[in-house]
Amino acid sequence: MNSSEQKNTAILLISCPDRKGIDTALTRFVSEHEGNILHFDQHVDLQQNVFFMRIEWDLAGFTVPAEQIHAHMAPLALDFNMTWQLFFSRDVQRMALFVSKMPHCLFDVLARVEAGEWRVEIPLIISNHETLRPLAERFNLPFYCIPVNAQNKEEQEQKQLELLREHRVDFVVLARYMQILSPLLIEAYPRRIINIHHSFLPAFPGARPYHLAYARGVKLIGATSHYVTEELDAGPIIEQGTIHVSHKDTVDDFIRKGRDLEKTVLGHAVWAHLQHKIITYHNKTVILD
Amino acid sequence: MNSSEQKNTAILLISCPDRKGIDTALTRFVSEHEGNILHFDQHVDLQQNVFFMRIEWDLAGFTVPAEQIHAHMAPLALDFNMTWQLFFSRDVQRMALFVSKMPHCLFDVLARVEAGEWRVEIPLIISNHETLRPLAERFNLPFYCIPVNAQNKEEQEQKQLELLREHRVDFVVLARYMQILSPLLIEAYPRRIINIHHSFLPAFPGARPYHLAYARGVKLIGATSHYVTEELDAGPIIEQGTIHVSHKDTVDDFIRKGRDLEKTVLGHAVWAHLQHKIITYHNKTVILD
Amino acid sequence: MNSSEQKNTAILLISCPDRKGIDTALTRFVSEHEGNILHFDQHVDLQQNVFFMRIEWDLAGFTVPAEQIHAHMAPLALDFNMTWQLFFSRDVQRMALFVSKMPHCLFDVLARVEAGEWRVEIPLIISNHETLRPLAERFNLPFYCIPVNAQNKEEQEQKQLELLREHRVDFVVLARYMQILSPLLIEAYPRRIINIHHSFLPAFPGARPYHLAYARGVKLIGATSHYVTEELDAGPIIEQGTIHVSHKDTVDDFIRKGRDLEKTVLGHAVWAHLQHKIITYHNKTVILD
Amino acid sequence: MNSSEQKNTAILLISCPDRKGIDTALTRFVSEHEGNILHFDQHVDLQQNVFFMRIEWDLAGFTVPAEQIHAHMAPLALDFNMTWQLFFSRDVQRMALFVSKMPHCLFDVLARVEAGEWRVEIPLIISNHETLRPLAERFNLPFYCIPVNAQNKEEQEQKQLELLREHRVDFVVLARYMQILSPLLIEAYPRRIINIHHSFLPAFPGARPYHLAYARGVKLIGATSHYVTEELDAGPIIEQGTIHVSHKDTVDDFIRKGRDLEKTVLGHAVWAHLQHKIITYHNKTVILD
Repeated sequence: MNSSEQKNTAILLISCPDRKGIDTALTRFVSEHEGNILHFDQHVDLQQNVFFMRIEWDLAGFTVPAEQIHAHMAPLALDFNMTWQLFFSRDVQRMALFVSKMPHCLFDVLARVEAGEWRVEIPLIISNHETLRPLAERFNLPFYCIPVNAQNKEEQEQKQLELLREHRVDFVVLARYMQILSPLLIEAYPRRIINIHHSFLPAFPGARPYHLAYARGVKLIGATSHYVTEELDAGPIIEQGTIHVSHKDTVDDFIRKGRDLEKTVLGHAVWAHLQHKIITYHNKTVILD
Repeated sequence: MNSSEQKNTAILLISCPDRKGIDTALTRFVSEHEGNILHFDQHVDLQQNVFFMRIEWDLAGFTVPAEQIHAHMAPLALDFNMTWQLFFSRDVQRMALFVSKMPHCLFDVLARVEAGEWRVEIPLIISNHETLRPLAERFNLPFYCIPVNAQNKEEQEQKQLELLREHRVDFVVLARYMQILSPLLIEAYPRRIINIHHSFLPAFPGARPYHLAYARGVKLIGATSHYVTEELDAGPIIEQGTIHVSHKDTVDDFIRKGRDLEKTVLGHAVWAHLQHKIITYHNKTVILD
Repeated sequence: MNSSEQKNTAILLISCPDRKGIDTALTRFVSEHEGNILHFDQHVDLQQNVFFMRIEWDLAGFTVPAEQIHAHMAPLALDFNMTWQLFFSRDVQRMALFVSKMPHCLFDVLARVEAGEWRVEIPLIISNHETLRPLAERFNLPFYCIPVNAQNKEEQEQKQLELLREHRVDFVVLARYMQILSPLLIEAYPRRIINIHHSFLPAFPGARPYHLAYARGVKLIGATSHYVTEELDAGPIIEQGTIHVSHKDTVDDFIRKGRDLEKTVLGHAVWAHLQHKIITYHNKTVILD
Repeated sequence: MNSSEQKNTAILLISCPDRKGIDTALTRFVSEHEGNILHFDQHVDLQQNVFFMRIEWDLAGFTVPAEQIHAHMAPLALDFNMTWQLFFSRDVQRMALFVSKMPHCLFDVLARVEAGEWRVEIPLIISNHETLRPLAERFNLPFYCIPVNAQNKEEQEQKQLELLREHRVDFVVLARYMQILSPLLIEAYPRRIINIHHSFLPAFPGARPYHLAYARGVKLIGATSHYVTEELDAGPIIEQGTIHVSHKDTVDDFIRKGRDLEKTVLGHAVWAHLQHKIITYHNKTVILD
């Protein structure tokens, strides 16, 4: 069982120009109203002079009602010129899945959700192929097959976007979806589309990274989870992993061994996103505890 | 797709006292009958003076019919005092799964089978709890709930054994089955029961290893897959893995992070077993390519 | 070059019963006196209800003179019932090295110091063998050979202790020193003696862990750096690492491969100690950034 | 102590078009002459149809005198169209070191040699800076400072080459030598110049990889050891490693943490080269046991 299911907490994610006294102001805000801080993590990028913070506190006993926290924070946020977001652990996020033909990441995501490892709802699965419909049906999840090609891309993505909006999707996970998204979708869900790419980026972006890795004769293969931006495989990296390979491994072995890495790396990234641990800036991520 | 599905190969696994000329004799046996060797790996334990070999060759063009290979090998095996096993890649192995309440390893195993990553049949799932029956049913797999306690252990294990025999099971995977097997079962499937233990053995054998690891203040957690022997968590180790943890991780974090490790480590171990890559001796494993 | 050489900072390490408002009080203490916080990290052990913090700030512009910080902090510390330590980055710590016959850890430590990776002075090296004297001399470091055996242990450790005091040693690194320290030394330098043990503890404590690991047939070997306490190899763990091994690796291979791990793990641990990042409690470490 | 110091073995490294019966022919060659095979490893690249083998046997009792092995092998090699090399473990290889200003890899290499971990002679160290001369002198090693710039590159490399020849150098290790070698040197020591590059290639080739990695926001840093070819950082990869980094790590932290990785990865690569385990083909390495 996931302890987050039972938590009733508020989470603040903040970034702002670094200045003396921010920590004090924020921790005071919580403690003045009798909030019990459960997690507090901050980071300062001394090069860019940017301050980042994640603070999570128990709402039990907090003297400001949840719906008024936003208003109470606003003056402080203005004062420090903050970019900020407020989340509540009791809100269940709605995650859309995009897939193509390969089932391993989809299976792994569904298993985590089913097992209660993640607290999330999956209102729909979208694919450009029919292949994984039976799997979706077995989990009683709506499956929309929207084939995309060079000619129909714009109109099909429009359909995808309408589905996402209709199902009030909070964020999207590309679980080995083998299509490049156009700006239409990316701009609709900025920093809210998570991709898993099967290489240690920035090496081997684009198609067939295992084949390219094999051709190059690397001794490691990797996987990278990142937020999708307009430049292919170049968005802010959330998590990466590698494993050793040797001359004995064929491309098929790379693919087989890589699957476990893809599942694990994607799993970590979605977990961090779900826990509201990630702030992006300058095409990077800060992942606070 | 799994290339092993299309292969039609023979696999010899051999161990014997080390002696000059074994390699020659064995490779000659294959090449004399026009066998094309696809994999050949050997190992010599110089301390114990034991020779190990795995040889896999294409049956296409091999001049000895598959059913006569055994007879042809026998004199050679006798000559070198070999312990040997002959397998055919076209034979589909039958794997029983034992589970308790936790679904993550079961899910992962079923996903691999469904996705064609492993070439194996699952004739039945046995559990001491009803918890995972719905999951088994979703995959249309027979599920037997056989509750075990101190009083009924002997008779219940007898039932389990009958089920395994009835379903002609080749090997057993304990996918987080939280019961200790008695010699009855272990002796019926020697070196053919694979367990996943959630620690880097030999540290933290037995119950609640994540709790013990947390209490000790380790900076790593691990998982170990091994063949089950009569001594608890002390059988031949097939695969191990670790990941870093820190003071920030609670026992719940250990459990959450450890799940990915358990899935991966168990997956590697079962793969090696399915490919007939493992020879055991002196409570160790030799894993040949 | 090490940027810490140029820093002029104060570092506070604090642990105390968790209570609302500690963060606020501490960050306010620094910011009220115009201190620019460079690093701030905290941790709460929710199970034990203990609060931990490390705060490092630039002394440039700080309105409290360095020598008065202690007095200024005292009332706050008393108020929150803190266990606390104050360090200054400009103070160069004095590290004694204990070695036996194996040179790899000693070499690695000396190389780091020489290269300016660590800001530390080495007033002396103590050994129970003459073996490494030439190496010490090459680095112009005083080398004391104090052979220890069951009979003379007490008096020899007394000599060691006198040397440590005479040379005003701040902490001790056992760089593969193959003797068990008695309480005399351990109590004189509590949580200030760092050992490197060549296994993933708690597995294989004591002598010859690589041999034991080989006999057990593990697929991983490890190294652990910990503070020395009276129970052998059971003190608070600072850092651990593992690498994969296979049936092909002999005990000699374990030893050879393990050396790199020992060097790296010990290096990380000493770095964290030198940066005043480590707080110990309940036989564990909290390592703050 | 290194067991290889005491061995008296012959090592054959072979590659040739794959054909039935090669293994048999080679193992028979050794066993017919009473050679005791200590290591035997082979690999077949099924895609390219190339066979690779390393065989090491004890010369004690081998009926062909060492100086006649070459002649005895020749007909067999011709028959199978082999590319082959014969080595003797008693021959001590001569390794030249090229360095610039950073000492950590040089120190680590010298420590390994001093400690007897590697059986090798270092006839000279070449640098484009005077910085590390004192370190070379402390180890009593000849140090040649040959400053290289765009104008004098050709003539200075000519001098380097003359020194290498004069000192009968077998292979070269670039221990963080920050100059690009021209074809003159590379062609003189084909597949015998080992470089350590401080990134997981093919990502971040060329200058300042840690800075590029930081700018990209990666969550891993790496190191790669490879044979030098004319294309910069694109030669056959021998060994790679990675470690996790986070948003907390500055470029200086990348550099500091990377050093340990560079030392370890370079150490593994040189070890494999010294043990005659590496065959190169198609810009890749096969590393046989």
